[in-house]
Amino acid sequence: MSLLHPDRLFSPDPSARAIAREIHAGIRDLPIISPHGHCDPAWFAADAPFADPASLLVRPDHYVLRMLISQGVTYEALGIAPLDGGAAETDMRAVWRRFAQHYYLFRGTPTRLWLDFTFQDLFGFDEPLGPDTADTYFDRIAECLARPEYRPRALFDRFGIEMLATTEDALDPLDHHRAIRESGWNGNVITTYRPDAACDPDHDQFQANLDTLAEITGCDTGHWDGYLDAHRNRRADFRAAGAVATDHGVAMPQTADLAARECRALFNRVRAGSAQPGDAALFRAQMLTEMARMSAADGMTMQIHPGSQRNLNRSVFERFGRDKGFDIPRAVNFVDGLSPMLNAVGDAPGLRIVVFTLDETTLARELAPLAGAFPALLLGPAWWFYDAPDSIRRFREAVTETAGFYNTVGFNDDTRAFPSIPARHDMARRLDAAFLAERVADHRLRETEAHEIARALTVDLPRRTYRLAGSTA
Amino acid sequence: MSLLHPDRLFSPDPSARAIAREIHAGIRDLPIISPHGHCDPAWFAADAPFADPASLLVRPDHYVLRMLISQGVTYEALGIAPLDGGAAETDMRAVWRRFAQHYYLFRGTPTRLWLDFTFQDLFGFDEPLGPDTADTYFDRIAECLARPEYRPRALFDRFGIEMLATTEDALDPLDHHRAIRESGWNGNVITTYRPDAACDPDHDQFQANLDTLAEITGCDTGHWDGYLDAHRNRRADFRAAGAVATDHGVAMPQTADLAARECRALFNRVRAGSAQPGDAALFRAQMLTEMARMSAADGMTMQIHPGSQRNLNRSVFERFGRDKGFDIPRAVNFVDGLSPMLNAVGDAPGLRIVVFTLDETTLARELAPLAGAFPALLLGPAWWFYDAPDSIRRFREAVTETAGFYNTVGFNDDTRAFPSIPARHDMARRLDAAFLAERVADHRLRETEAHEIARALTVDLPRRTYRLAGSTA
Amino acid sequence: MSLLHPDRLFSPDPSARAIAREIHAGIRDLPIISPHGHCDPAWFAADAPFADPASLLVRPDHYVLRMLISQGVTYEALGIAPLDGGAAETDMRAVWRRFAQHYYLFRGTPTRLWLDFTFQDLFGFDEPLGPDTADTYFDRIAECLARPEYRPRALFDRFGIEMLATTEDALDPLDHHRAIRESGWNGNVITTYRPDAACDPDHDQFQANLDTLAEITGCDTGHWDGYLDAHRNRRADFRAAGAVATDHGVAMPQTADLAARECRALFNRVRAGSAQPGDAALFRAQMLTEMARMSAADGMTMQIHPGSQRNLNRSVFERFGRDKGFDIPRAVNFVDGLSPMLNAVGDAPGLRIVVFTLDETTLARELAPLAGAFPALLLGPAWWFYDAPDSIRRFREAVTETAGFYNTVGFNDDTRAFPSIPARHDMARRLDAAFLAERVADHRLRETEAHEIARALTVDLPRRTYRLAGSTA
Repeated sequence: MSLLHPDRLFSPDPSARAIAREIHAGIRDLPIISPHGHCDPAWFAADAPFADPASLLVRPDHYVLRMLISQGVTYEALGIAPLDGGAAETDMRAVWRRFAQHYYLFRGTPTRLWLDFTFQDLFGFDEPLGPDTADTYFDRIAECLARPEYRPRALFDRFGIEMLATTEDALDPLDHHRAIRESGWNGNVITTYRPDAACDPDHDQFQANLDTLAEITGCDTGHWDGYLDAHRNRRADFRAAGAVATDHGVAMPQTADLAARECRALFNRVRAGSAQPGDAALFRAQMLTEMARMSAADGMTMQIHPGSQRNLNRSVFERFGRDKGFDIPRAVNFVDGLSPMLNAVGDAPGLRIVVFTLDETTLARELAPLAGAFPALLLGPAWWFYDAPDSIRRFREAVTETAGFYNTVGFNDDTRAFPSIPARHDMARRLDAAFLAERVADHRLRETEAHEIARALTVDLPRRTYRLAGSTA
Repeated sequence: MSLLHPDRLFSPDPSARAIAREIHAGIRDLPIISPHGHCDPAWFAADAPFADPASLLVRPDHYVLRMLISQGVTYEALGIAPLDGGAAETDMRAVWRRFAQHYYLFRGTPTRLWLDFTFQDLFGFDEPLGPDTADTYFDRIAECLARPEYRPRALFDRFGIEMLATTEDALDPLDHHRAIRESGWNGNVITTYRPDAACDPDHDQFQANLDTLAEITGCDTGHWDGYLDAHRNRRADFRAAGAVATDHGVAMPQTADLAARECRALFNRVRAGSAQPGDAALFRAQMLTEMARMSAADGMTMQIHPGSQRNLNRSVFERFGRDKGFDIPRAVNFVDGLSPMLNAVGDAPGLRIVVFTLDETTLARELAPLAGAFPALLLGPAWWFYDAPDSIRRFREAVTETAGFYNTVGFNDDTRAFPSIPARHDMARRLDAAFLAERVADHRLRETEAHEIARALTVDLPRRTYRLAGSTA
Repeated sequence: MSLLHPDRLFSPDPSARAIAREIHAGIRDLPIISPHGHCDPAWFAADAPFADPASLLVRPDHYVLRMLISQGVTYEALGIAPLDGGAAETDMRAVWRRFAQHYYLFRGTPTRLWLDFTFQDLFGFDEPLGPDTADTYFDRIAECLARPEYRPRALFDRFGIEMLATTEDALDPLDHHRAIRESGWNGNVITTYRPDAACDPDHDQFQANLDTLAEITGCDTGHWDGYLDAHRNRRADFRAAGAVATDHGVAMPQTADLAARECRALFNRVRAGSAQPGDAALFRAQMLTEMARMSAADGMTMQIHPGSQRNLNRSVFERFGRDKGFDIPRAVNFVDGLSPMLNAVGDAPGLRIVVFTLDETTLARELAPLAGAFPALLLGPAWWFYDAPDSIRRFREAVTETAGFYNTVGFNDDTRAFPSIPARHDMARRLDAAFLAERVADHRLRETEAHEIARALTVDLPRRTYRLAGSTA
């Protein structure tokens, strides 16, 4: 028995499947490029063993937690303690058994496919996880994790990762990245500049963050121009630590392009704590345009991740904190939202703005036409809830006919679940092969073209987008 | 010749089709569970013969009427008289011939598939309906309807219906359900609590309905607390008549969670006829949350059917009345809309809120992420215009990757067309089998899992959702 | 080698493909009906040779230009000069080489399929266009264009065009159409009434256009009733020049139905240049309803093309002018938008309003339910960015289950790229055949029905919709 079929995710049609196999064979063994994600750089700095199976695969994975919660399991039962210090399960084997008992809930989800890949490929299982196999799984995984070849750096090498970007806050001292570089290990782990907490007046630490920003940079964050200089300064620090990109998580893809005088007045109001209604949103909107301008100047690729309503469940958020309170996508409007920024910098030579969406109705209607016209704009891959077989197919079907393949950027795993990285790239490559094969099978593409496109999506476009070594553009 | 192919609605791919046949064979003969619909309980109370073919299959079916109207046939020509007493066709054979003449219009629609199923399975036809066969059809159906085995109770048994829920207004005396129970017939026909006309200040009988509610319940509907008590009282009456669920048809899925003092003041304004702009909408929004609270207390499953703009065609509505004036779906926002209710009761143990949508863009973006996180929330099946092969596939593709199968509730036929019930469940089971088979064929699911899921969608999840006999949860 | 496979765009499944071939064979050779497009009537009036390959196939095609611009090619490099008289490439062979060098960008887009069809079918190529074949292509196409059989009228005949509608502004003298009719050539080229520039108070020439309208018609466009008379007068002129339809491009599908007194006051404000905020939008909305009323009276089919945000890129628009500045679709609301017009004239006997959309979320949610109920409303085919294989399939899947096939109108090529017309109709016919074949293969339709529907979509429905010769309705 086997958890993974060699033809998984390919069309069942024999002609399309045969073509998909050929295309996939051409990209299967290419290195993994992971230019956007949320792994903890401390793993690679310390190279300490990962803890037990539940702490590696269940407790930190919000895809897993949400599904279990939705069917009545509690955070406490999964070993997640409330912020007030209340009790939670401490027996990780008990957490794992609960997970195994509910593993059937993931049927039809990408989480199941990623985990089965990890179970077979990394830990050698061929019997499905379930109540009967829970202990066998727990024991074998625990035994593996104790071995040197399952430490973070060994896995990084085993996975064939050519580069991995993490994401750090603008105020992060970047110590782990420094430690990685100074360690002599040759793994290519870089950072990404994420300034949200220093760009959002609604963030509860906004004022303190600007004070810290002043301390770190020596810039006067008490006025607009000094504040922008502080960002420029920090961006330079991040670039020195290897960063090739910035990342911006915003509730709405709203941009603005105010006159300098208005910017200064707006900054003064939010900095003085005398913001008027709408000021915080306007400030965030203006800061996206400022960040785009800085990217046009310093060459960092800009990534915009909009449209998530954070922590919809207030009581869970209050009890368990961020990333536990159910982030939910919402409808967005990129046409009005991005116009100010695109009119300001959309034609800037060399600028690269990668936009992601959680509202797939915008793909064909707004984003593909925008990316298929503005030189600066590129489409990020299907993101978060949409990083899944049917959703990825819908993504390609929605954007390709208007924007083609070459206004997209290849795959991002965008994960904090390090062991899932090969599984996610495997899925993405198979889905690319399947999508291309179907278009060869109905004669929209020639097979030679499909091979070229597959390679572009796997390595060429990520390298070009993030200006990585090996880029030809 | 035959109207129905045994492999209808299965993938033409031989491997996927073979798997679909196997899966379908495992669920084909399971009993029909119909927990949400609009059949008339009087049929089963009186067990009188159905009238002529046109009155059974054409005149009451708004799917059929809309399509004929859209191509220039008039209501009058279909035997639907204006409210002002104007003339309409009274010759039901003439109505039937008009229908047969236009039957080609339904090509590609589910109505055609449901009707062909009924024609073959219930009335034994194997030649298609059309102008040439109109009279043959009319005569044979009329002859059948006169026979005892075509009376409502006999059909109920023949169809293999395990339970059927109708829907009654909060003020309904439930006489028909009482008559059914007292008749000694063992058919399981229950009611559902539908309080819209007593929760909507914009309803033209709102004040009178609250007066009647007071009379029926003995509660003082002149103030907020008495009004809520009256609902509790009526819900208990409905539960005594077998009800397991409530149903709420609202234009927008908007909820509110006001402080008690605000609720009282709001009620006083709408009850005194001094409502301010926005009060009616706010009252409806608050009542959804109140109904959810009552469901958390009394265990009735709550069903929310939002997003239909009723009677868009004012002149047709004025001439012919409700359900004739073209109800049209509109875009909705579940994230903002449901937040107040979900924050109030979304984590309540045992509460089950089933949400339906006519805006399929909300499925992947809003409803699957919400249902895949909040314990109380479940996804109702593809509804109304979307109860059709391509739409049902899109429903599953949109929700499964985020919410899985187990946050959905199986199939609802939601119909007032009693003869179509087996046809609709047949279609749903075939589409489930086809959907699962494709995921087995591309190795996303194992075949044993697909069989389990198919059975869950057919009987286990409906039983669990509505706490029916046989439920294991 | 060949650029075109005979089975292109058919399902790879052998059973569905065999059926698709049969269906396609029945419609492949039917005449082309092109009731909506933007060819230049001067081509057929003068019958002059087309210029060089780049001026025929690259420079006027905004699909081609947008994609090249999106990847950093400039308008100037493509031979498009700025409005200020700045320099641009004048060597058309150089433009063509640039195009050939970037032709890979169109992989996966309909442009590539249309162009390959034109390259093979019209110019006899069997090697793909690319940097290596650029000169061969340029030379052979240039050589062809110099020959009499590549002149506009000869191509019109060769393409098998039964009728072709162009689109002219309300103020157009229609000289070219007069010249065509007086030339003795028997090609059926007619005009279409497009009054946008005389209906939109925000148009920069609105006042001058109304003055001209008065001069042409002799009507007093200084007051509302005279202004409406002027439109009636011009519509009669257009009908005399063969027109069967009007066309309305509006940013939003917003209609209004004001009382006559309000219309007069509104007109007076916009005509006096004293419009208040919202007046221009309200005027456009009212004019759609007025145009629908005129269509109900004079029998011209009304076409509404809403939802394009014109010239989003202001600097490109200012430098290069209209149709260069990136038109982008946006979300629209047909339910609220069309209600006033549909309530005013939606039941008018014989009225035909064809609605198109660039927001495909409205297809299943709004337009199919509206067209499947209101007699006047018909659904235009997938438009602009959506005139492509996957998008056309989504169109049919979204509308058919609710509106059937017979509330749609067949195909419009809507193009100004004359050589692409056969390619576009070829694609549409293949996609119809493929869509129908899949429904025959899974037994939703009988094969005889599929043949009838295919013929209806190709010739019967266009003829009926636009009341063309040969129409049976």
